[in-house]
Amino acid sequence: MIKSIGIALAGFGTVGAGVFDYLQHQSDLLAERSGFRFDVRSIVVRDLKKNRDVAPPSSLFTTSWRDLLKDPEIKIIVELLGGTTDAFDLIKAAIESGRMVVTGNKALLAEHGQEIFALAKKHDVPIFYEAAVAGGIPIIQSLRDAFVGNRIESIHGILNGTSNYILSRMQEAGLDYKAALAEAAELGYAEADPTFDVNGGDAAHKAIILAALAYGFWVKLEAIRVDGIEAVTAADIFFARNLGYNIKLLATIRSAADDSIEVTVAPTLISKNSVLASVNGVFNAIAVKGDLVGDALFYGRGAGRKPTASSVIGDLVEAAFALKSEKIHGNGRDKGKINFSFHSLYGTSRAAADICSCYYLRLTVEDQPGVLGKIATLLGDAEIGIASAIQPESLEGSEASLVFMTHQASYGMISLALEKIQKLSCVKSKPVVFNVEAV
Amino acid sequence: MIKSIGIALAGFGTVGAGVFDYLQHQSDLLAERSGFRFDVRSIVVRDLKKNRDVAPPSSLFTTSWRDLLKDPEIKIIVELLGGTTDAFDLIKAAIESGRMVVTGNKALLAEHGQEIFALAKKHDVPIFYEAAVAGGIPIIQSLRDAFVGNRIESIHGILNGTSNYILSRMQEAGLDYKAALAEAAELGYAEADPTFDVNGGDAAHKAIILAALAYGFWVKLEAIRVDGIEAVTAADIFFARNLGYNIKLLATIRSAADDSIEVTVAPTLISKNSVLASVNGVFNAIAVKGDLVGDALFYGRGAGRKPTASSVIGDLVEAAFALKSEKIHGNGRDKGKINFSFHSLYGTSRAAADICSCYYLRLTVEDQPGVLGKIATLLGDAEIGIASAIQPESLEGSEASLVFMTHQASYGMISLALEKIQKLSCVKSKPVVFNVEAV
Repeated sequence: MIKSIGIALAGFGTVGAGVFDYLQHQSDLLAERSGFRFDVRSIVVRDLKKNRDVAPPSSLFTTSWRDLLKDPEIKIIVELLGGTTDAFDLIKAAIESGRMVVTGNKALLAEHGQEIFALAKKHDVPIFYEAAVAGGIPIIQSLRDAFVGNRIESIHGILNGTSNYILSRMQEAGLDYKAALAEAAELGYAEADPTFDVNGGDAAHKAIILAALAYGFWVKLEAIRVDGIEAVTAADIFFARNLGYNIKLLATIRSAADDSIEVTVAPTLISKNSVLASVNGVFNAIAVKGDLVGDALFYGRGAGRKPTASSVIGDLVEAAFALKSEKIHGNGRDKGKINFSFHSLYGTSRAAADICSCYYLRLTVEDQPGVLGKIATLLGDAEIGIASAIQPESLEGSEASLVFMTHQASYGMISLALEKIQKLSCVKSKPVVFNVEAV
Repeated sequence: MIKSIGIALAGFGTVGAGVFDYLQHQSDLLAERSGFRFDVRSIVVRDLKKNRDVAPPSSLFTTSWRDLLKDPEIKIIVELLGGTTDAFDLIKAAIESGRMVVTGNKALLAEHGQEIFALAKKHDVPIFYEAAVAGGIPIIQSLRDAFVGNRIESIHGILNGTSNYILSRMQEAGLDYKAALAEAAELGYAEADPTFDVNGGDAAHKAIILAALAYGFWVKLEAIRVDGIEAVTAADIFFARNLGYNIKLLATIRSAADDSIEVTVAPTLISKNSVLASVNGVFNAIAVKGDLVGDALFYGRGAGRKPTASSVIGDLVEAAFALKSEKIHGNGRDKGKINFSFHSLYGTSRAAADICSCYYLRLTVEDQPGVLGKIATLLGDAEIGIASAIQPESLEGSEASLVFMTHQASYGMISLALEKIQKLSCVKSKPVVFNVEAV
């Protein structure tokens, strides 16, 4: 009754080791539920001699992903190499050889999804990528399958656990950015080089994948505004809280009235009463608004060995069913379900400068009379409405913070106004601009 | 490129009309994404002459579900008849004829899931039932597919929108039960006869389905404790709040240390800081704890025309893919994926009396000295530890409320102790027992 399927793991970091360990020791339940066992026939590693906490027989190791293609018994390749070079070559070669691919590679899909799925379609090979976004949260299959009938109005996602941990600790414990980052690193929530987590790049990759599922095409990374959390200070957290908001690194994806698609990743003030505002620590959450389903929300661990392995294992089973169907019937595949549908009912992404939002602005200014007036005038000249302004007492010496909450304006207009404002002699540093979203 | 598939709607109430309306007017996006259009060839109604807000050509109507089986072009039957008589006969006949079934019938699955899926397995016909639990929330596919590798430690669900609306309004607006129920009825959130929503029966059906997906067998409805919200008073809401809790009608499903399965539906006090406590109004939410995925949560609209149609449409597409695969290959089906896996890695459900919990007890007693002592003594004799007790000042006349929060005890022990307590002459009515859960 139970069928064994040969697979390979390309990459043996945290997630790869988690998948292997699971398949070795915990796969009875999986076999009962699915009817499949997975036989790991080959593992691609960079360093054959590295000490590992999960230690497969060294006979499984190879340093060349090309070896995987030589074994006809390898039917599914789990790509966990990361990066966009070898991983890209491997996935293309796997598809061309008719092998199914399970991948958690968000960077690769965000940058080359267009080509990968075009090739997958050509060869009728499904790609499985639940692990690429939000770890163990089944947001990919939910958007793709469960919500297939929905026009997606918006998606708001907290998609990077490291950033969310840092912001949560700044919020809860009053830490400043550096202290919170140091704490995250100490607890293993931030990598040795956390740049890509805190600068919004990782969240942007995930946002592009979610936007592609919702709208049927791949938005270019270069085209979207990606701001990280490095500019968020304890003062911002404080001001936001007094105004009734929490600050989150939020991916905002939506269809505009003209059906063009907006994708933004930026620190964003959201009402502290919203469910998303209560998502703390390393957790991820995604709020989806569909015309049928209404408001839906998904919450869970966005990273880590086990949660991500959970998604990889779910995908392995889906791949195995697709494979079984193919095997039984002897010819061709389950044509059409490559797990991404290109279509052109939407089809343009809106330029970052044309995307409208309300904003939180913080400026560091000389603490002297008339400054508020000068800045407010420049905002008014740009037709940017001010919803509220805070000029707290100066904290140190001759500098003060000025905070504005604006009405809706395009990012282009606000950027232009801030360029002018920055040139004022009374303005002492680059203004800080965060979004404000009703979620 | 787009394939048309003949389907039938058995039942044309809120959800059936929603599905029909969608397929008539909004299916371009669905076609682009999935490659399918659905051609409704027949609709089973009870009353041919009824006025309907969504009005299909009367030529589609029939009053006999048997007619659906006569049309070989009907490949998928959407069962929305409700109930467990005609619906059961229809589903069995559909399976036997090799047709795929999409159903939202929680009562039928909870009561006859065992037989239905055994028959489905025999005939290799998948059943799709995302709409049976929590409306538009994709909890069925998430538990079944995405979490297929997980040992599920627990599931906590707010599964009945009517009950949750009533409790939310009691909580937010201080309404009593009757006023909140009347408000729900006025807004269309409670049916003319709301019994099955407020007595826990509906939530119990859904809990049985979730337990079956998690643990591989069908718990008997008769075996589980099902308490509704009719006994919840404004005083309970008040006491719970003062103790730091909200009251929710909660389905609690978990595997005990000996791998037996516990299923309970009861009013339950949960910390007001928990995410589930903030799920208000007609919304549903399900918190899942898996050994791999950790804590995950799903939130959305649990009922209503469009959210439930969203799930039916998702299932139609899944069924269409299964059908397409069958068609292309010409023989047999995608064997093995009937969408429910029986297994016996768990396999017993724990008797309600043996399930342990902490409890909230409220007693109406004579307002005279010594009463608290008598009751506390009886609890102590039964070895039920008291975590806290509240004896508020009496509200009216000679009666007073007494509230206890207990430590862990089995439901059998607490029931026995309360039977004795109820016999005390100073106790004026049946004691109220709610669960207390850390979620």
